[in-house]
Amino acid sequence: MRVTINDIAKKAKVSPSTVSRVIADSPRISEATKEKVLKIMKEMNYHPNMIARSLVNRTTQIIGVVMPGMAEQSLQHPFYPELLGGIASMANKQGYKILLANVSTVDEEREMVKELTFGGITEGLILLTSRDDNPTVEQLVKNNFPFVVIGRTENPYVNWVDNDNFLIGYQLATYFIEQGHRSIAFLGYSPGYRVTRDRLNGYKKALEEHDIPFDSRMVIESKFISDNGYDLMKAFLAQGKSPTGVIACDDLLAFGAIKAIHQAGLRVPDDIAVAGINNVPLADYYNPPLTSVKINAFSLGTKAFEMLQTIMGSNIRSYNQAIIPAELVIRSSTQRG
Amino acid sequence: MRVTINDIAKKAKVSPSTVSRVIADSPRISEATKEKVLKIMKEMNYHPNMIARSLVNRTTQIIGVVMPGMAEQSLQHPFYPELLGGIASMANKQGYKILLANVSTVDEEREMVKELTFGGITEGLILLTSRDDNPTVEQLVKNNFPFVVIGRTENPYVNWVDNDNFLIGYQLATYFIEQGHRSIAFLGYSPGYRVTRDRLNGYKKALEEHDIPFDSRMVIESKFISDNGYDLMKAFLAQGKSPTGVIACDDLLAFGAIKAIHQAGLRVPDDIAVAGINNVPLADYYNPPLTSVKINAFSLGTKAFEMLQTIMGSNIRSYNQAIIPAELVIRSSTQRG
Repeated sequence: MRVTINDIAKKAKVSPSTVSRVIADSPRISEATKEKVLKIMKEMNYHPNMIARSLVNRTTQIIGVVMPGMAEQSLQHPFYPELLGGIASMANKQGYKILLANVSTVDEEREMVKELTFGGITEGLILLTSRDDNPTVEQLVKNNFPFVVIGRTENPYVNWVDNDNFLIGYQLATYFIEQGHRSIAFLGYSPGYRVTRDRLNGYKKALEEHDIPFDSRMVIESKFISDNGYDLMKAFLAQGKSPTGVIACDDLLAFGAIKAIHQAGLRVPDDIAVAGINNVPLADYYNPPLTSVKINAFSLGTKAFEMLQTIMGSNIRSYNQAIIPAELVIRSSTQRG
Repeated sequence: MRVTINDIAKKAKVSPSTVSRVIADSPRISEATKEKVLKIMKEMNYHPNMIARSLVNRTTQIIGVVMPGMAEQSLQHPFYPELLGGIASMANKQGYKILLANVSTVDEEREMVKELTFGGITEGLILLTSRDDNPTVEQLVKNNFPFVVIGRTENPYVNWVDNDNFLIGYQLATYFIEQGHRSIAFLGYSPGYRVTRDRLNGYKKALEEHDIPFDSRMVIESKFISDNGYDLMKAFLAQGKSPTGVIACDDLLAFGAIKAIHQAGLRVPDDIAVAGINNVPLADYYNPPLTSVKINAFSLGTKAFEMLQTIMGSNIRSYNQAIIPAELVIRSSTQRG
């Protein structure tokens, strides 16, 4: 039989509402009574019902993490588990648990966020999104619900953590240009995603600084994080295009591109140099090892939780933005002999 | 201003408790009233508070997943995100969300599970454990709370999903013996973990069938899933031991062991053949590519959720066990030229 609040009250010779107040740590209860009730709760192996408690003091110590894409896909790219590890490690240290919600469409995201904010289970949200037209973000701002976005938004009333994607694109393109490249393909531009647009703008800026005209035919569109680099590069090469370098918006795209380049009888890096972004563990072991950008997903996660905790614990509305530095990791895929 | 149940009641000209009953879909409310109240809820953009609703009908559509090890460590081994992806993909399809709880000690696990079962937030639990002496499992059985273990337990009143670890050890050792090996080290035996014990027993059985005496000095103890293969193999080789083969309980241990073997001036596989278990993505790209066992962590996850859903949805106590098949993937690290 499960022990109830009434059983405790009876044994402690107090009213059930007094027991409730002890659970909620109400200042209206004397220390002596608190001690007596807590001792009996312990003796009877009673654990205050988390839901009942949360109705009283409105804390559940749970934050929601809303991830895009189907669960199976998103967790298979190393970026997501690393980010989640960062959030979870910081959350655990502070006694918080994580409610994972995967959404695959914008509609699903909106419904999920409604449920999580109005539902009373989560005290705050971390939202992974890099889409621009995100009605969910506007809704959360309107409702004044504590949340942090991974990826930046235009709305100034939003707390966010991001990499400097403009700088990532700029540094990669500058590195290629300094290696003597003049014809550099940009693989993985996805119009709806600010992250790829920022990177493309950085790439353009580097070209401009070196008086290299921007050629829109060198931009290969794709879904943001995906593994269709092989098909895209194959089609690109079949059109007779011959860049000497490829900057891919993600390592998985780069791996596929290298496969297509090899299959076309060309060498990496001698005929076409290739770099990716994200520095997944495979990058170091691929043939050839892949030049990439370490974006520190773990730190994105720890910083996002820190930020969320600050706004959850305060009545003051504050808007913070943080940039996590990235780091170019040069390997054989871009180093000509 | 947030709309409350009272606002709805006022507008609908019914009592607040009638609104509550509509939310809980009580049969005591007429269809006409239900329709009227639901329409007003929609007009006023009211979302029933999830906590209030769960107090009424006791469903939250949330399951807990309790993972061992600190969050950052456990999510970095590809086994965990893949397993979690399997659980999440199946759970999402059925409208469930996942509450992630990472625990680093047995005490923490016990406290966390208490909170999750008595707390009223989760309807069921998936527990990742392969320790034997697990008081948490006994506690859950006693409380008759719906849960599924990933990894097997001795207790017959437990639902679990596992690989056949005895068979994995047996098949790997048989494969080594058939390649001509007589002196095979077993790296990664961890006494408290059934998974490594089962694998060691399979290994012993294969030796016995081929009349090769078991040599306990060939067993190298370590923590179960860890990256200290380099140190362990270095120390092992420094003792003057010279196996011709190494079976590692995890790919990360195998990668470390290969590094130590190379550093000692020996070749893999010509001097020492090495195999791992888990078939992480790196296995295919390592130098040399690593023979490993694909254990289908994703399927472990989907099956565990399926099982949990069966027991959450029924008053009948049923005890099911499922074995997910594993598959030997042979690569260069064990193939002599």
